[in-house]
Amino acid sequence: MKLRVRFAETDQMGIAHHSSYVVWFEAARVEWLRERGMSYREMEEAGVSLAVSSVAVQYRRSAVFDDELIIDACLNEAKSRRVKYSYKIIRATDQLLIATGESVHIPTDRASRAMRLPEAWLQQLRPHLSTGCL
Amino acid sequence: MKLRVRFAETDQMGIAHHSSYVVWFEAARVEWLRERGMSYREMEEAGVSLAVSSVAVQYRRSAVFDDELIIDACLNEAKSRRVKYSYKIIRATDQLLIATGESVHIPTDRASRAMRLPEAWLQQLRPHLSTGCL
Amino acid sequence: MKLRVRFAETDQMGIAHHSSYVVWFEAARVEWLRERGMSYREMEEAGVSLAVSSVAVQYRRSAVFDDELIIDACLNEAKSRRVKYSYKIIRATDQLLIATGESVHIPTDRASRAMRLPEAWLQQLRPHLSTGCL
Amino acid sequence: MKLRVRFAETDQMGIAHHSSYVVWFEAARVEWLRERGMSYREMEEAGVSLAVSSVAVQYRRSAVFDDELIIDACLNEAKSRRVKYSYKIIRATDQLLIATGESVHIPTDRASRAMRLPEAWLQQLRPHLSTGCL
Repeated sequence: MKLRVRFAETDQMGIAHHSSYVVWFEAARVEWLRERGMSYREMEEAGVSLAVSSVAVQYRRSAVFDDELIIDACLNEAKSRRVKYSYKIIRATDQLLIATGESVHIPTDRASRAMRLPEAWLQQLRPHLSTGCL
Repeated sequence: MKLRVRFAETDQMGIAHHSSYVVWFEAARVEWLRERGMSYREMEEAGVSLAVSSVAVQYRRSAVFDDELIIDACLNEAKSRRVKYSYKIIRATDQLLIATGESVHIPTDRASRAMRLPEAWLQQLRPHLSTGCL
Repeated sequence: MKLRVRFAETDQMGIAHHSSYVVWFEAARVEWLRERGMSYREMEEAGVSLAVSSVAVQYRRSAVFDDELIIDACLNEAKSRRVKYSYKIIRATDQLLIATGESVHIPTDRASRAMRLPEAWLQQLRPHLSTGCL
Repeated sequence: MKLRVRFAETDQMGIAHHSSYVVWFEAARVEWLRERGMSYREMEEAGVSLAVSSVAVQYRRSAVFDDELIIDACLNEAKSRRVKYSYKIIRATDQLLIATGESVHIPTDRASRAMRLPEAWLQQLRPHLSTGCL
């Protein structure tokens, strides 16, 4: 997915604040699902959430206001109790690597209790497994 | 209530981003209720929300990273269908006026439908009515 | 401009948090300038900022996660000491009005002091003046 | 440092959004310095920033709106080219572990170029080195 760094996402160092990347990863997961015919909105409406159990970001170069960024998401694991994504953020104009990252997710129900990801979702996810974003 | 401007709340102009003030107003409402023996968390758990129907901010001077700010909230209206607050933000070190603002709220149920604010809540709110924060 | 409501922009009421709208207005101003051949990034690099002196939002209906929204920005005033925009947020799928708003801006220099907006910028802005977004 | 989960920090899962933790870590670093007689604001004013080169969060239990949280920061490394912190977030009411995390920082100058952390800062940091937050 593509996005532009918003002014509100900058900080007084003149760069995108490092917490913004975590928000972009999430937006990229949602788009990744949509592009493959799945809807995270519908998953949530059906009472299944992919709660984040860990996230990590490695910052390589600064993104600045109005930069157009490409956020690549890759599905690395799709198990009934654990889903893992990795990410790569690239500056659109020159393909410069801005950041990489990973997130691990645990399927949870409406009461935030761990649950098994329904088989129907697993079957939709598995064909899109890849070894990583790098 | 008092708070410190977080680094994440600054932008590349080197000042607190103007959207942060709206978040601070909200935090001040929650503290305002707590200081008067009410809990917005309990109100939400009981299925009553005070949905924001309008908000306005007038920025007088910039707040910068690490400034200690005092956020004063004042209850201007407490009706079954409409609650109104006004705000004043002051820099703690020198009492400089940073911003003023207002917000109007509509009581809503869990399904986000307008409802009457239960009388018990109204009775708790009314004694704290004031003509404004200025 | 079009955007999708991010999961991070929702709150526990299940709707887009009201402070997000202020961020979207800003993103819409930046796009508005770009579509008309101006760059807010270049304006900032040249040492001119449009500091926000007031903002107001009227919330009509809730936006929810993954809604596709259209943010219309309209330039209402373009004076050397004051620039004013108004906004209309519409849900893309059914044209439902979600919110309206306004923001007033004061040109400032790198030291955050009020300055006159350079004539070159004013000349670029003026042809795009309109009476409003509604 | 202590803080309360703000309503704006929640998401539609009814819990604090996972990106908020990254912001809290940062606020905890600033308070950690202040409590030890250092000021990150002065460091920035002197032209030295601690740019984030990586961050990781492990989420153990959900924090919810209005929870009072204790954010412990521990300095694990203080070298001229690399500073490392770890974190532990605990719910104040019952000492429940909410999350742990780490961040690595690189001293940078105003132009965002890597630099050596001035010896005066290193000398102030070193006495506070510890093996971790856990």
